[in-house]
Amino acid sequence: MALSSLRREDRPAAGSGVVARQAIRAGSHRGATAGLAPGYVQGNLAILPNALAADFLQFCRLNPKPCPLIGTSAPGDWRVPELGADLDIRTDLPRYRVWKNGELVAEPEDVREFWRGDLVSFVIGCSFSFEEALMAEGIEVRHIVRGCNVPMYRTTIATQQAGPFHGPMVVSMRPFTPRDAIRAVQITTRFPSVHGAPVHIGKPELIGIEDIGKPDYGDAVEVRHDELPVFWACGVTPQSVIATVKPEFCITHYPGSMLVTDRKNTEFAIM
Amino acid sequence: MALSSLRREDRPAAGSGVVARQAIRAGSHRGATAGLAPGYVQGNLAILPNALAADFLQFCRLNPKPCPLIGTSAPGDWRVPELGADLDIRTDLPRYRVWKNGELVAEPEDVREFWRGDLVSFVIGCSFSFEEALMAEGIEVRHIVRGCNVPMYRTTIATQQAGPFHGPMVVSMRPFTPRDAIRAVQITTRFPSVHGAPVHIGKPELIGIEDIGKPDYGDAVEVRHDELPVFWACGVTPQSVIATVKPEFCITHYPGSMLVTDRKNTEFAIM
Repeated sequence: MALSSLRREDRPAAGSGVVARQAIRAGSHRGATAGLAPGYVQGNLAILPNALAADFLQFCRLNPKPCPLIGTSAPGDWRVPELGADLDIRTDLPRYRVWKNGELVAEPEDVREFWRGDLVSFVIGCSFSFEEALMAEGIEVRHIVRGCNVPMYRTTIATQQAGPFHGPMVVSMRPFTPRDAIRAVQITTRFPSVHGAPVHIGKPELIGIEDIGKPDYGDAVEVRHDELPVFWACGVTPQSVIATVKPEFCITHYPGSMLVTDRKNTEFAIM
Repeated sequence: MALSSLRREDRPAAGSGVVARQAIRAGSHRGATAGLAPGYVQGNLAILPNALAADFLQFCRLNPKPCPLIGTSAPGDWRVPELGADLDIRTDLPRYRVWKNGELVAEPEDVREFWRGDLVSFVIGCSFSFEEALMAEGIEVRHIVRGCNVPMYRTTIATQQAGPFHGPMVVSMRPFTPRDAIRAVQITTRFPSVHGAPVHIGKPELIGIEDIGKPDYGDAVEVRHDELPVFWACGVTPQSVIATVKPEFCITHYPGSMLVTDRKNTEFAIM
């Protein structure tokens, strides 16, 4: 049904998750999703063959801080109704990455031609949700102010293994003054299903980060003399872990091109 | 009424606040109150002439983190029924300090002979409450393990002035690993009326502490290489502020000899 055929009061609100997905599906929005549909949850995507689904589900259950699962599909089904009634996981992200045996084989704008009857979709919460809550409280998030990607680091913190899935936790880092760091612990504690409270604060060397100025993913940001680096479990962890497993087939979102859902960030606050 | 005349089911429970106060009042418990009546709130005491009461109340209202007021008396009244039905503030602390014009003039075990019809009692929450919550979650509190006093420091953090009351915030310090520091922020956030969340973490120099090994009050404790110093607003702040005002008369508790109340620590948890 075309939007124009809906009565006005039935049309989705401008700026909503569904309108963002429609624009992406129609090809009128391309590229990064940061800033799209403010207030709506965005998610990391991993699509795996059903043969790996049970192990990956278990991995997420055992590692809820880096892998907060917010939606899954039935095998072969491209819908994820818990995240959006009209959602089609094959078309609703701006760009994807397709992997075969651990090799990147394509970066298409939709994956209908790659679809298989045994694929299961996993949508994992993302830090956009808690960053919105931090900024709503007046806390400056450096990489957002700078307009770059959050710096991310592989750590010596091990994840809990499930089947073939294991490997180090990846963390994202945001620098804050001690006062804001304490406030950030409080605010992000309210969002356990989108990474929750930090996993580390100060002293990067204790988690195996040798040079805070050289992130393994994303961009470096300055940590000022009156600031502490604060580290959160990062949704890049499952992608990093999947990469080491080299599944015969898998699809992930292209970095920065997330799934925009119909769930509100505020729904994920526990208080 | 003597305890022995009560029916068994009416007798206060062993280990309760009222039993601790009865032992102190009878002179059978002397000295520090740490560890007495576990689970019951203990408080710092300041008794001031009524002429200063409005300003001091305002000071507490403006500075709730260092001065969390948990009980007050009517002028001249030695009872504080909100903290214990039988409570007599003149006799129920193991030891007091009596001050005239800022000079320490006595350290008696009861203050009945010093009582005046214009005195107002202020009972201020103490960190024993949140330390109990930390230990209940398995977090080691260094100075308790060491059996010494918590280290306390005068800082460059100013309090909000009210009448003659003003001066720097005093903080207490507990060292924790980053993981426990994050957990400690979460746990103490639940207790806003007994100092609440930390006011600072890491980097003591940012709040004017030059040498963490040389506290202004209490005892030094080790901060290990894998730990951060975590700082809470301290109930010594109002005593330090009162000392600078040099009121013509005032009574405080003797360090470590706190008021044991009938309120439970858990009553003060907001969630």
